[in-house]
Amino acid sequence: MVSPTIGGVMVMGHRGTAKSTAVRALAAMLPPIKAVAGCPYSCAPERTAGLCERCTSPDGKKAPVKATTVTIPVPVVDLPLGATEDRVCGTLDIERALTQGVQAFAPGLLARANRGFLYIDEVNLLEDHLVDVLLDVAASGTNVVEREGISIRHPARFVLVGSGNPEEGDLRPQLLDRFGLHARITTITEVEERVEIVRRRRAYDADPFAFAANWDKETAKLQRKIKGAQKRLPDVVLPDSVLYKIAELCVKLEIDGHRGELTLSRTATALAAFEGHNEVKLDDVRRIAILALRHRLRKDPLETQDDAVRIERAVEEVLA
Amino acid sequence: MVSPTIGGVMVMGHRGTAKSTAVRALAAMLPPIKAVAGCPYSCAPERTAGLCERCTSPDGKKAPVKATTVTIPVPVVDLPLGATEDRVCGTLDIERALTQGVQAFAPGLLARANRGFLYIDEVNLLEDHLVDVLLDVAASGTNVVEREGISIRHPARFVLVGSGNPEEGDLRPQLLDRFGLHARITTITEVEERVEIVRRRRAYDADPFAFAANWDKETAKLQRKIKGAQKRLPDVVLPDSVLYKIAELCVKLEIDGHRGELTLSRTATALAAFEGHNEVKLDDVRRIAILALRHRLRKDPLETQDDAVRIERAVEEVLA
Amino acid sequence: MVSPTIGGVMVMGHRGTAKSTAVRALAAMLPPIKAVAGCPYSCAPERTAGLCERCTSPDGKKAPVKATTVTIPVPVVDLPLGATEDRVCGTLDIERALTQGVQAFAPGLLARANRGFLYIDEVNLLEDHLVDVLLDVAASGTNVVEREGISIRHPARFVLVGSGNPEEGDLRPQLLDRFGLHARITTITEVEERVEIVRRRRAYDADPFAFAANWDKETAKLQRKIKGAQKRLPDVVLPDSVLYKIAELCVKLEIDGHRGELTLSRTATALAAFEGHNEVKLDDVRRIAILALRHRLRKDPLETQDDAVRIERAVEEVLA
Amino acid sequence: MVSPTIGGVMVMGHRGTAKSTAVRALAAMLPPIKAVAGCPYSCAPERTAGLCERCTSPDGKKAPVKATTVTIPVPVVDLPLGATEDRVCGTLDIERALTQGVQAFAPGLLARANRGFLYIDEVNLLEDHLVDVLLDVAASGTNVVEREGISIRHPARFVLVGSGNPEEGDLRPQLLDRFGLHARITTITEVEERVEIVRRRRAYDADPFAFAANWDKETAKLQRKIKGAQKRLPDVVLPDSVLYKIAELCVKLEIDGHRGELTLSRTATALAAFEGHNEVKLDDVRRIAILALRHRLRKDPLETQDDAVRIERAVEEVLA
Amino acid sequence: MVSPTIGGVMVMGHRGTAKSTAVRALAAMLPPIKAVAGCPYSCAPERTAGLCERCTSPDGKKAPVKATTVTIPVPVVDLPLGATEDRVCGTLDIERALTQGVQAFAPGLLARANRGFLYIDEVNLLEDHLVDVLLDVAASGTNVVEREGISIRHPARFVLVGSGNPEEGDLRPQLLDRFGLHARITTITEVEERVEIVRRRRAYDADPFAFAANWDKETAKLQRKIKGAQKRLPDVVLPDSVLYKIAELCVKLEIDGHRGELTLSRTATALAAFEGHNEVKLDDVRRIAILALRHRLRKDPLETQDDAVRIERAVEEVLA
Amino acid sequence: MVSPTIGGVMVMGHRGTAKSTAVRALAAMLPPIKAVAGCPYSCAPERTAGLCERCTSPDGKKAPVKATTVTIPVPVVDLPLGATEDRVCGTLDIERALTQGVQAFAPGLLARANRGFLYIDEVNLLEDHLVDVLLDVAASGTNVVEREGISIRHPARFVLVGSGNPEEGDLRPQLLDRFGLHARITTITEVEERVEIVRRRRAYDADPFAFAANWDKETAKLQRKIKGAQKRLPDVVLPDSVLYKIAELCVKLEIDGHRGELTLSRTATALAAFEGHNEVKLDDVRRIAILALRHRLRKDPLETQDDAVRIERAVEEVLA
Repeated sequence: MVSPTIGGVMVMGHRGTAKSTAVRALAAMLPPIKAVAGCPYSCAPERTAGLCERCTSPDGKKAPVKATTVTIPVPVVDLPLGATEDRVCGTLDIERALTQGVQAFAPGLLARANRGFLYIDEVNLLEDHLVDVLLDVAASGTNVVEREGISIRHPARFVLVGSGNPEEGDLRPQLLDRFGLHARITTITEVEERVEIVRRRRAYDADPFAFAANWDKETAKLQRKIKGAQKRLPDVVLPDSVLYKIAELCVKLEIDGHRGELTLSRTATALAAFEGHNEVKLDDVRRIAILALRHRLRKDPLETQDDAVRIERAVEEVLA
Repeated sequence: MVSPTIGGVMVMGHRGTAKSTAVRALAAMLPPIKAVAGCPYSCAPERTAGLCERCTSPDGKKAPVKATTVTIPVPVVDLPLGATEDRVCGTLDIERALTQGVQAFAPGLLARANRGFLYIDEVNLLEDHLVDVLLDVAASGTNVVEREGISIRHPARFVLVGSGNPEEGDLRPQLLDRFGLHARITTITEVEERVEIVRRRRAYDADPFAFAANWDKETAKLQRKIKGAQKRLPDVVLPDSVLYKIAELCVKLEIDGHRGELTLSRTATALAAFEGHNEVKLDDVRRIAILALRHRLRKDPLETQDDAVRIERAVEEVLA
Repeated sequence: MVSPTIGGVMVMGHRGTAKSTAVRALAAMLPPIKAVAGCPYSCAPERTAGLCERCTSPDGKKAPVKATTVTIPVPVVDLPLGATEDRVCGTLDIERALTQGVQAFAPGLLARANRGFLYIDEVNLLEDHLVDVLLDVAASGTNVVEREGISIRHPARFVLVGSGNPEEGDLRPQLLDRFGLHARITTITEVEERVEIVRRRRAYDADPFAFAANWDKETAKLQRKIKGAQKRLPDVVLPDSVLYKIAELCVKLEIDGHRGELTLSRTATALAAFEGHNEVKLDDVRRIAILALRHRLRKDPLETQDDAVRIERAVEEVLA
Repeated sequence: MVSPTIGGVMVMGHRGTAKSTAVRALAAMLPPIKAVAGCPYSCAPERTAGLCERCTSPDGKKAPVKATTVTIPVPVVDLPLGATEDRVCGTLDIERALTQGVQAFAPGLLARANRGFLYIDEVNLLEDHLVDVLLDVAASGTNVVEREGISIRHPARFVLVGSGNPEEGDLRPQLLDRFGLHARITTITEVEERVEIVRRRRAYDADPFAFAANWDKETAKLQRKIKGAQKRLPDVVLPDSVLYKIAELCVKLEIDGHRGELTLSRTATALAAFEGHNEVKLDDVRRIAILALRHRLRKDPLETQDDAVRIERAVEEVLA
Repeated sequence: MVSPTIGGVMVMGHRGTAKSTAVRALAAMLPPIKAVAGCPYSCAPERTAGLCERCTSPDGKKAPVKATTVTIPVPVVDLPLGATEDRVCGTLDIERALTQGVQAFAPGLLARANRGFLYIDEVNLLEDHLVDVLLDVAASGTNVVEREGISIRHPARFVLVGSGNPEEGDLRPQLLDRFGLHARITTITEVEERVEIVRRRRAYDADPFAFAANWDKETAKLQRKIKGAQKRLPDVVLPDSVLYKIAELCVKLEIDGHRGELTLSRTATALAAFEGHNEVKLDDVRRIAILALRHRLRKDPLETQDDAVRIERAVEEVLA
Repeated sequence: MVSPTIGGVMVMGHRGTAKSTAVRALAAMLPPIKAVAGCPYSCAPERTAGLCERCTSPDGKKAPVKATTVTIPVPVVDLPLGATEDRVCGTLDIERALTQGVQAFAPGLLARANRGFLYIDEVNLLEDHLVDVLLDVAASGTNVVEREGISIRHPARFVLVGSGNPEEGDLRPQLLDRFGLHARITTITEVEERVEIVRRRRAYDADPFAFAANWDKETAKLQRKIKGAQKRLPDVVLPDSVLYKIAELCVKLEIDGHRGELTLSRTATALAAFEGHNEVKLDDVRRIAILALRHRLRKDPLETQDDAVRIERAVEEVLA
């Protein structure tokens, strides 16, 4: 929420641990944004790049044509199970094709998710092909459609959030690698905490509005903290000493490619911003190392250590 | 029937044990409900949330526009084998598309099942994908359709009832876990009872109306009991002492996630309401423990005890 | 032919043993029936239940609207190999859709088979899915169609007759169980009888009409016997002593579910009616035990006895 | 060609042994037939049964309406590789559907083959499903179409001729059994004969018309012989002594079902007619035993004798 | 190019050995032909048989209606990867169906290839089914289309040329056998020759027109030689002594079927014609034996000799 | 970029090594070209061959009709995951078919890529069939479309660039061989360099325009160098001594076919041109040997040497 460039989050965990509930609650935490009125991609009025064709000025570098501006909530789009590729990417507008005989483009979920979040529950059950398309678009920020006589490209900058149950299989390492962070959720084993979960859920079931009202203050506080972090982020400094440690950590763990250190540095910077600091510290790296690296370790069949333990040890050695 | 939040029932059993007959008989036990006239989702006139677009008032929080009200039986929708996904979820209204050239939505079985029951016989033979969709909708209470140029969401709050024969394979644990209760039916081995079954069936075959008339009084009594339980439910108290025992039981049985204790507490509360009590007792938990937990145990290949026995022992130890 | 509630017959046997010929000859044995003129489901004018929508009176309990009555032969519908599911269950009426733009229902083979027989040759080669649909409809007597924008239910009470060659594989036990009776046909090994078969076939080939004329008297006698049995059936008594023996037999053979004793009692009653008796005797049960139970025995890989022998022994022990 | 009731011929043999050429030459050997002018099924004007709907008189037993008669060659229809099931069985007439909006039937290859031959090269490469349909129609003489809103039955009496290479796999025994005769062709190993084959082929390639003219007399002689056999066939007597030997032969060879003796008696009768005799002799049976029985022997993995040898020995023992 | 009846050529070889380049160059070697103007099958004006329906005279034996004649190059049709069966065989003319409502035939590649060559690169990657269709049409010279309401036959006499890489799998022996000749291409291992290949290719890349001009004389010489051979072919004598040797050779090599000797005699005759002789000599047979027989040898797993060596030895023994 | 005849580049490497980023940056390095205005294939106005139908003059050899000329950037077409074959190759123009009833051709990505680059990310995940089509078109420079009633051929000369991750499987050797060059990218293991990568990426993320401006001079220098190399290329001499060494190298490494030496000579010539030389030297061959040959070595399961090492040794021996 603080830094969209981190590049997607993957949440894996036991069934029944409220993964989906948590992700779907994101919408409520985000401050509203300004958008060009009537633009199906919710283009940002103040931007000069990454806009759709209609909102781009002819020279491609100046500010777009002055358009009416509306304030909208950050898009949080839910990709339902059973959504077809044409609805995801956009397709021929059948209504206009039949009534007006023109091949117009009907934007899909990727258009609607522009500048927001796209959530996929049970991402590990989705066809590899569709995951591929989603990651490709998420990485490039552009959706290129070449099908049914349609040939279009439009902005589609969103944070991809996937969740799933590890017992139902995992994604291919190549796909995993393209998610920025990878969180694991496990069942709570403390009786006291479990009782608290049931209590809260019963309170919610009994009166959802009253329940939400009780948490309003807490929510507002968190929103302010996020908004502050977003504003502070560009000014947070990543000292060279920390950056070197980040690179060393990745070399030590023999991570393929360079997404490891990019994610580590982006996430640590976002964490510093969230905590209200102006400089990234080694401790910020320490706190997010497992989130950012666990899914990037090479699978070693002879390795008996747990992945998290391997990362923790490397962190101790390198960052100490 | 008393508490729809329990979240679906799965009935597995030998062939020829009248599973389907029992489930299909649910309709006769339920008191009628009030609905907005002409609403394809049978929206409740007195509710302020969970309504379809047309029935929701603009601010989303006040009561809906005053609409004509009709009294209808609780929907019990039968998902026939061979139903296609588009008929289940709803799809493009072909008739209107062809005659008027508009992309209107033709609601499917999920729309019709809103506020009632959706029954699937041989649920274990259904494609995982379709089961997934059904459970997803049942859990969220909302059907999100993104296909063939249609993009709509409508309320779909129903209790999912599945039945099947365990010899024909089971559901994936992840799907099982999302059913609230899991009942097992076995063949009766008492000659006397079997003779009684044949006698009743022959009586029914000879004259179905006379047969039904004979049971009218019994049916009415049960209906009144259910109605009373529905009214009493919000006031039934779940004492902390019982709630702690519920959480301990789940920890003891090492159940993944938190659906175990939620279902236990909801079902025990419903049972107390059905029995006419105002407070849940440990005995209520004891009676429904196997129903609520059997399908949530981890499969342990070295474990030789039957699942039901394991639960009974844990119940004895924890609730004693 | 005497008692349709027995629930379908499965005929398995060697290739070339005239299974299909026998089943297809059923039509000639059955007395004609009365039907509402123009009803695609051949609704019975004198019935008050199990009628199609158009033939049902508004209150659902009284006799239907007075309609013109026609006399028709009992339907014997042949499900050809390669029939598609839409033709079996009924589907959108394309002709009316194209010319009038309405989504009308074009009834299928299930509609035509109402009140008669549906015959499937090589039932074991049919897709499980289609067999499932057929058994489901045969059991419920109602065809529920939810596809292509069509949502309809109509009466479809018929006796399902399947035939097949056991060398080409069998049905799943769950499907088998839903057939009432299961007959096995084997090649005749007596030279004299085989010669007689060739002789009759040659006579038929030489002059089919003369051949049929020769058997007219015999056929008429059989028709009268069947008609008499149909009339006598409701008054045939099944004594408790016999019913207990039936239940004991099923318990002894460890048959799952309760379809075994239901079929035994229905078939024995039908046999008694056919033989002109007014009470079922143990001998009636004895004669039909193998037909009704063979396909319901649990498969026991260690059991070396033939299924028929096991049933015969149990019959001797229990009914002796 | 003499007796169509024999029920189809299967020709298996090495590649390059002119199997297809031989079968395709059948057309030239057959005397022309009379047909109702304009009937797509070439109905026979003098018949009272087995006619299409339009050609049948209302009472179903008298002669059909007087129709104009045309003389046509016996149909020999070639089922090309890649023919689709709808073209084989007939389907919706798209032209009339589009221009007139009616659901008319466009007859397929089965309609055209009525009263003639249907030839399938590489029958063992055809889908089992389509072979099934063809054999079913060939056996019943009626094509039942239930698809795409079409529901029709029409006469389709033809002799099915299949050919194939045994190295590319065989048909299922159940399908094989439904072919009347089964011929095997092998490569000639005599140099003299092989040279003669090349010589004739070169002569044909050089001048097809001259080549055909050279064989005209031989062809005409054969045509006369076939015509005579067709006329004589109904009067050929099959003595009881021969019929008993036929049945004994089938019992001795443990052939399943009764198609073995039926085919033997029909084929021996046809051979007698072809040879100009009025009575079937044991020698007629002896000559066609392998053709009629080879594909009906049970596969015995322990049997080391060649199938043809087994039949010859049984013939020697039984017919001696 | 000299004798189209030889029946197709299969070229297998290492990747990068200019197989496709060679085959595609065929077009330039062939003298132009005369065709009926406007005929989609390029029917030959002087022929009386093998013409399309429109070009055939009513009695089927005389010369066709006098038509305007055009001179066209011999068709060399390239079957592109991804061509669909309907484009190969021809299909419903969609344009005329939509605009005029008639079911007209749109001829496919087979129509265009009539009287010429059809080239398939990577023939071993084509579906067996499509290869089957192509070989069937190539052998019969007639394309029979039975699909989508179309029922048509038209002349399609062409030489089929296939190429492929043996490492990517081979055709089924039955398909292989139906190709007349089978050539194998291997990588050149002489440095000098390899350098020459690169030199020529570089010259071509630098200036294709100049390169072609350099070879004009050589090409014209070859064209004249081919034209002469075509004219001489019908008069070339195949002496009985040579024909007997050909048959002996095939018996010696135990080749199944009679295509071996047919191809040998046709190819040897064509070679004699090409060399300007009027009589086939044993040496002509010797030179083409491997081309004509290699793919017809039975696969013998115990045989350690290379196929080419086996043929050479048999040739030595028989033709010596 | 210097010599398009080299025939495509395949880039394989670890995930996260900026393969795609590098390829997509090609567009910025290339000087603009002149094209016929309005031609969908961007035909070159000054060329006489390789033009589309509309741009070709009737005699096929002279210059095309004088057309308006426009200056466009070199096309760099991105083949998105999920592009369908009809969009790649071009297909029926649905809009014109529906509104004007004509079967016009809608050019696809291959048309747009003419005279430029076609980039496929994750080429090893593409269907073999589509890769085949792409390589076929890239090799012949012509796209032949035979589908849906369309029959067209148009120029499609482009350089194919594929990238992929070797852990996700490789292409078939036959497909690999048809790529000119094959580059392997591995993760950098120097901490200093990795830090530099993160630094640059952070600078880009912070302000893409400023980042690009910083590199403008470097980019312009490279563009000039490429432009110079393109102009010099036709005049670069490949001495016979070098050509012989190239051929010897391929013989030594036992490379199948002749694409090895063709690619080596073309690439070495291009490298010489890029370096500003007028003659190819042995050192140019040495530098590109691994790029051009690695994917052409025969796989030898007993060979323990790395492919790159084998090539280096052969280079030392032959070129020394």
